[in-house]
Amino acid sequence: MRPDTNRGVTTDVSPSAFDTDLDKNAANFEALSPLGFLRRSASTYPDKIAVIHGGDTYPYGELYRRCRRLASALKARGVGHGDTVSVMAPNVPAMLEAHYGVPMLGAVLNALNYRLDAPTIAFIMEHAENKVLITDREFSPVIGEALKQSKAKPLVIDIDDALAEGGELLGEKDYEAFLEEGDPEFEWSYPADEWEALSLNYTSGTTGNPKGVVFHHRGAYLNAVGNAIMFGLNSATIYLWTLPMFHCNGWTYTWAVTAAAGTHVCLRQVDPALIFPMIEEHEVTHMCGAPVVLNMLIHAPDELKREFAHGRIEIATGGAAPPSAVIEGMERMGFRVTHLYGLTESYGPSMLCAYQDGWEELEIGERAALMARQGVNYLTLERYDVVDRETLEPVPADGETIGELVLRSNTVMKGYLKNRQASDAVFQGGWFRTGDLGVKHPDGYVEIKDRAKDIIISGGENISSLEIEEVLYKHPKIMEAAVVARPDEKWGETPCAFVTLTDGADSVSAQEVIDFCRDNMAHYKCPKTVVFGGLPKTSTGKIQKFILRDQAKEV
Amino acid sequence: MRPDTNRGVTTDVSPSAFDTDLDKNAANFEALSPLGFLRRSASTYPDKIAVIHGGDTYPYGELYRRCRRLASALKARGVGHGDTVSVMAPNVPAMLEAHYGVPMLGAVLNALNYRLDAPTIAFIMEHAENKVLITDREFSPVIGEALKQSKAKPLVIDIDDALAEGGELLGEKDYEAFLEEGDPEFEWSYPADEWEALSLNYTSGTTGNPKGVVFHHRGAYLNAVGNAIMFGLNSATIYLWTLPMFHCNGWTYTWAVTAAAGTHVCLRQVDPALIFPMIEEHEVTHMCGAPVVLNMLIHAPDELKREFAHGRIEIATGGAAPPSAVIEGMERMGFRVTHLYGLTESYGPSMLCAYQDGWEELEIGERAALMARQGVNYLTLERYDVVDRETLEPVPADGETIGELVLRSNTVMKGYLKNRQASDAVFQGGWFRTGDLGVKHPDGYVEIKDRAKDIIISGGENISSLEIEEVLYKHPKIMEAAVVARPDEKWGETPCAFVTLTDGADSVSAQEVIDFCRDNMAHYKCPKTVVFGGLPKTSTGKIQKFILRDQAKEV
Repeated sequence: MRPDTNRGVTTDVSPSAFDTDLDKNAANFEALSPLGFLRRSASTYPDKIAVIHGGDTYPYGELYRRCRRLASALKARGVGHGDTVSVMAPNVPAMLEAHYGVPMLGAVLNALNYRLDAPTIAFIMEHAENKVLITDREFSPVIGEALKQSKAKPLVIDIDDALAEGGELLGEKDYEAFLEEGDPEFEWSYPADEWEALSLNYTSGTTGNPKGVVFHHRGAYLNAVGNAIMFGLNSATIYLWTLPMFHCNGWTYTWAVTAAAGTHVCLRQVDPALIFPMIEEHEVTHMCGAPVVLNMLIHAPDELKREFAHGRIEIATGGAAPPSAVIEGMERMGFRVTHLYGLTESYGPSMLCAYQDGWEELEIGERAALMARQGVNYLTLERYDVVDRETLEPVPADGETIGELVLRSNTVMKGYLKNRQASDAVFQGGWFRTGDLGVKHPDGYVEIKDRAKDIIISGGENISSLEIEEVLYKHPKIMEAAVVARPDEKWGETPCAFVTLTDGADSVSAQEVIDFCRDNMAHYKCPKTVVFGGLPKTSTGKIQKFILRDQAKEV
Repeated sequence: MRPDTNRGVTTDVSPSAFDTDLDKNAANFEALSPLGFLRRSASTYPDKIAVIHGGDTYPYGELYRRCRRLASALKARGVGHGDTVSVMAPNVPAMLEAHYGVPMLGAVLNALNYRLDAPTIAFIMEHAENKVLITDREFSPVIGEALKQSKAKPLVIDIDDALAEGGELLGEKDYEAFLEEGDPEFEWSYPADEWEALSLNYTSGTTGNPKGVVFHHRGAYLNAVGNAIMFGLNSATIYLWTLPMFHCNGWTYTWAVTAAAGTHVCLRQVDPALIFPMIEEHEVTHMCGAPVVLNMLIHAPDELKREFAHGRIEIATGGAAPPSAVIEGMERMGFRVTHLYGLTESYGPSMLCAYQDGWEELEIGERAALMARQGVNYLTLERYDVVDRETLEPVPADGETIGELVLRSNTVMKGYLKNRQASDAVFQGGWFRTGDLGVKHPDGYVEIKDRAKDIIISGGENISSLEIEEVLYKHPKIMEAAVVARPDEKWGETPCAFVTLTDGADSVSAQEVIDFCRDNMAHYKCPKTVVFGGLPKTSTGKIQKFILRDQAKEV
């Protein structure tokens, strides 16, 4: 008898003939690792274009050699198993190569969020104990300051990209010269155990110090495979890097696109003036981005937009539900939107709003409402549920009862580095607690209603700030919207809306906005206050509601 | 320091911060198992058609309930962890359902080859120690005899399929009535360990007793995922079951099609008169089969053939290289051929002849020659090589030096059941030895030249029987061909060709066949003897060369 630890039940598993002389051996068991994807694509498609960056292109054979050079050069400088290598760079080849070259040594990749400030970067470098920092010239001001503030004294290597603007070289050597130190035929090793750490991604908490989320090889392999299947990647895929590679390792597309032997099209900045022509020139098939990126494309000047002759472009979005207007706007421009859900702790995307037969015949508004839901599990996400926050028991799948979304999967992080307390707070009852509140619909689809702290309680009723935002986004003159609770003597809290108007929109009054909401949703849910202006955002583009909550108290 | 057992080298893996407080727990680690594919498809697409069988169709929700019923009913009869359940059936729903219902209990599925004779089945039942036998009415004669001959006394359940011809009911109960005993909401368990046995497939050795190849949950999960990615399966996939499900569990497509939430179209027998109309009616997108199946479709009467309006049909073939004429013939009928390679020991397909950019512009003969190669590794096959049979050192990738194809992968079997000696003979030096001889081309593609015992040595020169067969298949009047060694006083051995002519072909003389070969290949390789007639085949359709070798001595 052996307990089935996964289920909390005991199964009769007395030994049988199947437990004898059928052990693991070197021929039938190997650690799962995304490193194998690069080896395979380099061996199968050595001359196929792997990377496009500006006017430069190079094939899989060369990408593999460059990654092996990087591993070899790092090893010569003493980097080994369990050491951390940080990279501060936009979506350039060096960042992609670090996703292979660093873990080839059993070392851990720490891709830094380039929107962070110097004190936070200094904190991360100390916490991660990085031995090496590879940094793009453009970010030398903040990195220079962070190095001054930090006790960490890593070897600094500069990425001196011809497409970078400004900045200066800070380090001992340029990245290209550093690669020259390495052996392109370097013999690297698979991890001895697929549970070994692969990368370290700090979450941009809105308060407190960032937490270091640790990924392992097994999870990255599986999530990348999940991406390839769910998003339909194959060797004809041309993937444009509109999503930062530092963000959950580019939602693990850094590995997934290589698994499919597709082409990585690098992009230093999310700028419609670059994106539209690149999609056309390179015949891009797939891309990802937060809804704000989609919004930016929709609201780009008409002269930038193109008719794409090469076919429909798949775009996956997540981080917040794409409002109906965004889905509709993207479709009009020749994109198909897939709505994903995930967190850094789940290797990026782990759920998707799987399209159902018949949806295509629905009127756009109705369809968009279905598609705005976070949906169901990725093939590679074993379990999800919406549970009561106290008992962790499932809530009814009635589309109304709010609970917390919880996940269970090989594609959930190992835990937070050197932060047992934080890990224990999220691993409870056999689940990873996402902190996101939502409902489960009768069809099993999850719809996030809010982060736990973003629910507005007015007159005892729970009001979802996301629901109000969804209505606001339908207003033709509103480009961005965020709703938070505003303290109210009578109601406890009332919704306060912050809105940014589209460029060139005529002025709109607060009352017009409120009236628009009253025409489109239950009156008790409508904002009582409307504030016009820009919205404060985190370095990853998330709207900082804690700042808005402070502002809401003052208006 | 911990040895890297995979590589035979020692890596410095002294503990780091990444080894502390970052352990596996119930939320971030679960056994990989193909059973999760069904749970997900049933939950995400409960009303989507999962199975078509004759005029019956039922959706994923119902497939899941039926599988849970099966598990529950089997459990009530005492089936549990490590027990074997055998199924003797063509590609009918019960066979598919057994791929889920049996392992839901931690039990092991033994899908029987329905072309076997009674003594062999009797041997397998005793060796597998099966507790239950689920058997289709059509096979009652051979099963009735096998039960008489065998000491095994399993519970017998009949599949009384309305589409079955003849036969009688042998067992205690009909399958549908047996399902009624089970609970459609049965709470099944994941395996406690992904290394646990999932299925048991006996290889149809041409000599000696069959060997029982044991698959585990991890390998089946990965190979199914590999199929989905390599063959481009998705929720729009309509998969026609032209490949027997008993054959390596249908090359793991039993699980892969479910993973993609595609539709399984059942088919009791490989008959062009059924296949062409079914492809048209159900708008089939994908199918698999041995080259003999493709040949049968090509040589079907014209009145059976159709123009398929719904698009190109993907067909994967393996077991032997598809001759150029077969690739060309299938393309003309609207199919695209993918050439796979694998063995029962590698969960079916583990290599594929990956298509390269530019091949589409080649002349058909040149392209077919490239496509006839076994190719490169599946995404989920970690390593392959061609090695010297004595030293196990890689041979040069020169397209000429013959060695043995070896594999290393999570998708290689656990071993042979109760046959340590046979396992030890194939697991050597960190490799699984396939017994197939071939070359590695400069582009890394493997081309099988022969089974070890099928090479002809004439005047000291190695002659590949496959190479001669490839030429013979190009002859317009030859439908099937097999070449073996014939003892010769002068040369040691000479090639002897056995050929079957196409229906309605005029008679052809031996000299004409030899002349055709001399026009198309080096003269020393040409057959010296030609024999006309039908070819003896194993139960899986492989030509039995050992019988031909005996015959060759007599002619």
